[in-house]
Amino acid sequence: MDYKELIIKRRSIRNFKEEKVPMGMIEEIISESTLAPSAGNEQPWKFIVINNRKMIDRISEECKKSMLDRIASNPKDYAKKYEKMLSNEAFHIFYHSPAVVFILGDSRVKNLYVDCTLAASYLMMSATSKGLGSCWVNFGREIKNNHLKEELGLLDDYEIVAPIALGFPEKLVGIPKRMNPHIIKIIK
Amino acid sequence: MDYKELIIKRRSIRNFKEEKVPMGMIEEIISESTLAPSAGNEQPWKFIVINNRKMIDRISEECKKSMLDRIASNPKDYAKKYEKMLSNEAFHIFYHSPAVVFILGDSRVKNLYVDCTLAASYLMMSATSKGLGSCWVNFGREIKNNHLKEELGLLDDYEIVAPIALGFPEKLVGIPKRMNPHIIKIIK
Repeated sequence: MDYKELIIKRRSIRNFKEEKVPMGMIEEIISESTLAPSAGNEQPWKFIVINNRKMIDRISEECKKSMLDRIASNPKDYAKKYEKMLSNEAFHIFYHSPAVVFILGDSRVKNLYVDCTLAASYLMMSATSKGLGSCWVNFGREIKNNHLKEELGLLDDYEIVAPIALGFPEKLVGIPKRMNPHIIKIIK
Repeated sequence: MDYKELIIKRRSIRNFKEEKVPMGMIEEIISESTLAPSAGNEQPWKFIVINNRKMIDRISEECKKSMLDRIASNPKDYAKKYEKMLSNEAFHIFYHSPAVVFILGDSRVKNLYVDCTLAASYLMMSATSKGLGSCWVNFGREIKNNHLKEELGLLDDYEIVAPIALGFPEKLVGIPKRMNPHIIKIIK
């Protein structure tokens, strides 16, 4: 797919078909995501792949619970504005996507956030180039339950940077309007 | 340019031709970078464009000085390992690139780092798609001199996330080897 076409087509998808994502496709986009640059070429990104609806549902429930606990213990938390949505039983943080990829790494790595975000950008573009839809779901970072963490291979030193919902888009929605770039200064 | 070809071609460039980058090209890649997703579609990215070698040289000198000051006041700073390089008069943090784009924003924005990094990823890809080379230069974030900050329009509340050197590549170097992706777990 042509790059220009790709960046125009890429958008956050929140409606997915039932169709499963072939594992080979997920492995391919993960492999392409590692072509991202990283500080000192350290490539600190690691991945967890969930291609199982039951587990995705469990993670959604766990993250909703953790977010609501957070809001309850600190009503000033930024997430307060999502309280109603998170309290809605029908709300699924991954929008019922058939697959989820977590991009994560050792929290002690200095540039972990930037490097994993660069890989996430590549991963979302690769997904688009193969006809998949994706959505970065920040709520997906809130996995606190120790049993679930163990099942996912989430060690205590690991920090999830990018939880990405993946699946075939049900319908292509329009790209949200972009503002004109705010260029503070041009020095020629 | 085909996306797959693009991600294979994109690499950090540290050798630039003398040739100036046309302003229209810089504006176009900035515009394309704003197609990146952002948390809540807030698009918090702002840009400063330096297409002037003298100013780029001044910023390079300023950042080297700030980094060396930082190391002097804290020998345990991560940057200690760069001390020799930064002390070398011939070292230019932007590798004498003819242009630099800063991606920045209000430091109070919660997702500033992630959002500006996503835009930076798009910007570097757009640069590649137009035959330009780029390199994310973290040292470029260390502008402390108030007079220089004022000249650049860098308000105190602004934080530079991504300083990107831009120019036509002198020669294409091979892409550094990537490790096989570290997939911690696959749940099918």
